[in-house]
Amino acid sequence: MTEASPTPNPTAHVNRWLSDFGAAIARGDHAAAVAMFDDDCYWRDLVSFTWNIRTQEGHDAIRAMLDATAAEAQPSGWKVDGEATEAGGVFESWFTFETALARGRGQIRLKGDKCWTLLTTMVELKGFEEAKGASRPKGVQHGIERDRQSWLERKTQEEAELGYKTQPYVVIIGGGQGGIAMGARLKRLGVPTIIIEKNPRAGDSWRNRYRSLCLHDPVWYDHLPYLPFPDHWPVFAPKDKIGDWLESYTKIMELNYWTLSEATSASYDEAAKEWTVTVNRNGETVVLKPKQLVLATGMSGLPNIPKIAGAEDFKGEIHHSSKHPGGEAYRGKKCVVIGSNNSAHDICADLWEHGADVTMLQRSSTHIARSDTLMELALGGLYSEEAVKSGVTTNTADLIFASIPYKIMHTFQIPVYEEMARRDADLYSRLEKAGFMLDFGEDGSGLFMKYLRRGSGYYIDVGASELVANGSIKLKSGVAIERITEHGVKMADGTELPADLIVYATGYGSMNGWAARIISQQVADKVGKCWGLGSATIKDPGPWEGEERNMWKPTQQEALWFHGGNLHQSRHYSQFLSLQLKARYEGLPTPVYGLAPVYHLS
Amino acid sequence: MTEASPTPNPTAHVNRWLSDFGAAIARGDHAAAVAMFDDDCYWRDLVSFTWNIRTQEGHDAIRAMLDATAAEAQPSGWKVDGEATEAGGVFESWFTFETALARGRGQIRLKGDKCWTLLTTMVELKGFEEAKGASRPKGVQHGIERDRQSWLERKTQEEAELGYKTQPYVVIIGGGQGGIAMGARLKRLGVPTIIIEKNPRAGDSWRNRYRSLCLHDPVWYDHLPYLPFPDHWPVFAPKDKIGDWLESYTKIMELNYWTLSEATSASYDEAAKEWTVTVNRNGETVVLKPKQLVLATGMSGLPNIPKIAGAEDFKGEIHHSSKHPGGEAYRGKKCVVIGSNNSAHDICADLWEHGADVTMLQRSSTHIARSDTLMELALGGLYSEEAVKSGVTTNTADLIFASIPYKIMHTFQIPVYEEMARRDADLYSRLEKAGFMLDFGEDGSGLFMKYLRRGSGYYIDVGASELVANGSIKLKSGVAIERITEHGVKMADGTELPADLIVYATGYGSMNGWAARIISQQVADKVGKCWGLGSATIKDPGPWEGEERNMWKPTQQEALWFHGGNLHQSRHYSQFLSLQLKARYEGLPTPVYGLAPVYHLS
Repeated sequence: MTEASPTPNPTAHVNRWLSDFGAAIARGDHAAAVAMFDDDCYWRDLVSFTWNIRTQEGHDAIRAMLDATAAEAQPSGWKVDGEATEAGGVFESWFTFETALARGRGQIRLKGDKCWTLLTTMVELKGFEEAKGASRPKGVQHGIERDRQSWLERKTQEEAELGYKTQPYVVIIGGGQGGIAMGARLKRLGVPTIIIEKNPRAGDSWRNRYRSLCLHDPVWYDHLPYLPFPDHWPVFAPKDKIGDWLESYTKIMELNYWTLSEATSASYDEAAKEWTVTVNRNGETVVLKPKQLVLATGMSGLPNIPKIAGAEDFKGEIHHSSKHPGGEAYRGKKCVVIGSNNSAHDICADLWEHGADVTMLQRSSTHIARSDTLMELALGGLYSEEAVKSGVTTNTADLIFASIPYKIMHTFQIPVYEEMARRDADLYSRLEKAGFMLDFGEDGSGLFMKYLRRGSGYYIDVGASELVANGSIKLKSGVAIERITEHGVKMADGTELPADLIVYATGYGSMNGWAARIISQQVADKVGKCWGLGSATIKDPGPWEGEERNMWKPTQQEALWFHGGNLHQSRHYSQFLSLQLKARYEGLPTPVYGLAPVYHLS
Repeated sequence: MTEASPTPNPTAHVNRWLSDFGAAIARGDHAAAVAMFDDDCYWRDLVSFTWNIRTQEGHDAIRAMLDATAAEAQPSGWKVDGEATEAGGVFESWFTFETALARGRGQIRLKGDKCWTLLTTMVELKGFEEAKGASRPKGVQHGIERDRQSWLERKTQEEAELGYKTQPYVVIIGGGQGGIAMGARLKRLGVPTIIIEKNPRAGDSWRNRYRSLCLHDPVWYDHLPYLPFPDHWPVFAPKDKIGDWLESYTKIMELNYWTLSEATSASYDEAAKEWTVTVNRNGETVVLKPKQLVLATGMSGLPNIPKIAGAEDFKGEIHHSSKHPGGEAYRGKKCVVIGSNNSAHDICADLWEHGADVTMLQRSSTHIARSDTLMELALGGLYSEEAVKSGVTTNTADLIFASIPYKIMHTFQIPVYEEMARRDADLYSRLEKAGFMLDFGEDGSGLFMKYLRRGSGYYIDVGASELVANGSIKLKSGVAIERITEHGVKMADGTELPADLIVYATGYGSMNGWAARIISQQVADKVGKCWGLGSATIKDPGPWEGEERNMWKPTQQEALWFHGGNLHQSRHYSQFLSLQLKARYEGLPTPVYGLAPVYHLS
């Protein structure tokens, strides 16, 4: 009668865990629920319990969150979706669940019968689902009525009245990829929204960049919500092609997209709970009164312009990388590019391509990741043709990525970059021979962690590193700048680099710089620094916060939101920000748990 | 030792048939191959064997085709794709195969071990596959080169030079849905093409129609190639929304799309094998020299304007339905609409909506199919949310529809319309009570067969029938027109219908009317009537031809092609026409089997 207990069926095993977990919460026994977690445990919630984006780390944090949120969230229906898998004692599974207000999707990893990582995300609000598929609008009411409006007439009327006769619920400042993705989500959710864009056409924020720019991320990583690129789309899309796509996308999704418009000021009336946003719309002043304001001005803030002695005496041209017009005008000119990250490399390559004499001035070490290697080692599993073929859709890939807690993400990343260092050893050694200062991040965790921690410090190599290694792009590294002279840059070692052009490829400030410019310094200080995890690495000071500061979630300024990031983040997090806004639009209760305190002003 | 022979495994059964069939052809034993068909048998080939679109009906026709084509086609690799099914003794399956030049996909129905219907279609030419998915272009050559062209520069140069410094291989006249779908296919196949469109913007051929028009076909039926509508797209898209989609589509697919352009004449040099097409491009005369000319001017030809005595004396306004501007201008006016098909109903409803006094003048019986019923009974199995959920993609649905030979298609259709007659009996009886002459086609086979045979004779009811039944739209039926007077229409029964407006909703001629207008009457007569199957029903005279006349396949005029039809046909048949053109562009042998003779001039 005794038999070895069989290896548990992974799906049954995870279902049993979920069911016990759900039951413990349902009976209010949070101690029992928390006891089901491993000592090393993480519960990341995207909006479904916390109306926030938060990772709870450890038993105490999970217990505190449950105590604060479970009674109102009323979670139920925890159930494996598809089939769970098991490898090396770790069970992994997708699951679905519900709360009082929403349907959710999650991902779980169990070590044996204890939970190691748990991700819960909100998918849709009950009763406020997006109309799609079987619930899509019919488009025409069959039956003929007198004087009904056509689609075009309704659309034309809405465009004419919104912002004038009627007020948008949301104003999004910034009509790049972030504002557009957010606008599309809100449109599908039926939340009246205006997007404010300073350029003449949607997509210009890409078109205006230097001529040879292509996306550094591959196509599978870059889809916008709802309308994926067709399958002949190039792996690395040229900037003008992306610009044209964004322009078509705004039209297809019927966004209220105001071009040639700039928000000149904004202030919040705490009593009326309403913003006053003054917009210069192609010369006309329009005052908007939205309830919610989203800054989608890019994950970067305003350009960092270093103060270098003597700059005012320089007889040549100085501009920040964001103003670089492309290399055409600089054939035969001497150019010094200050900086060694993505923009610096791209601009150096562009200038060299056009026959300029280029020197890169590296001030600190830089992480170089060859694009091909990065695609294969770091992205390929989730975002590639092979991933698509094995059933990993973009949405699935986004959720898998989201399921790894930031606290331990570097441990997943380090081996990738160790392999990269081996594979591209030749390039790295030649770069070092040329004097280039290399790093792989302070803990060797490479590109993504640098991006998530500080949004800088790396170059995705699409060719410029070869030019640095072979000397086509000259390099001055590890020497401080003493001053700018009338005709060049004087270095601390006494050398002087003659220059007709100096480019400050010196990056950007925190995104709350935009709040300072458009709203007030007071509000910018109130919300504090945007981006970064608090990893206590360079440019990402502690304490540990565990999520990107201020991004896609409530801030210390009521009704002010920050949206941005690369195309992946614009796509993925616009889902959660749009649901937070939709809930408020519909008057649903949205008690925010664990609003992040402010540790840094910028 | 005796056992009942088991029901054969369907997949194994079909694979055995395919393998035997392939072997018979491979050893040149066409008699054996033909003997594997049932007495009642059909082999429809889309380009893969015949470089034509042809249905072979019966043993002799199949034998003749094999004798003529098999040696060159060298078919091989016949293999079930997925799993075959069996129901009522009929085995059905998808399969793949190859020819010397191409990869193909087919569908087969076996009655027991004999073939009843066989469909073979060309999917792609070996060595000339579309770059997509894993073979998509990289978009950027990593590595920096001096003075390389950007995507935008290449595109701008191509647009500036094509038609001037360089010549397109194909010119498509007509930039509606048909020309656009063809253009997209040819673009993906790398065949230089210019599309000539008379309107200012892509999509205007939809926008210019009356204001309340929505597509009468549901969204699942309407996708264009490569870029499906997003899943919130309405079931019945309003015309301006479709117009905007087509405009975005031409940009996204990077078509060389000349707006405000009209082909004023075209002639073919049989010796040089080249067309001379004179185009008025926004006032500038441009002479194009393509090798292939596609007329994509719609499946309809020029407007049919009936000759009615007295029309020249009419004091009011007369126009053809194609020129109807919408009902706004006719509030309170008396309007007579001659005709009772789709356009007549739509225009009557539009005029009534705007408060006009409308009379429909029905000259012959009409088939009425309520849109909802049609969707459910006739389209739902292949084109609906349910179909999508059960795995029937648009492409699969197109092939299933293509797999039913036209000769027997009516037998599949008749039961659908018997059910429709039952379900909507109330509407039909009220229409008859109002004097409306109804039919379901001569053989009761309903709407699709009418569409395929004559492209007219029906109304997809989106509401106007109710207005006819309840008298809101007045009806005059079954009485001949005697003449038009100064102020109205005099009928043979002595009554006179007063009118401020007369609309000729009298349909269109054959598409070769466009060849007469642009090329010559001689060429129009040489190619003969377009559309229709030769069913010997009204407006589709015999003899039986078995495929749409002249559509998407070689015509009696070398290098002249007709492309058109609804969105489904534009999507589906553009695949086969584009492959025919690509093969010629690449200089592959394309021996046409069974070029259709001409029986009718128009």
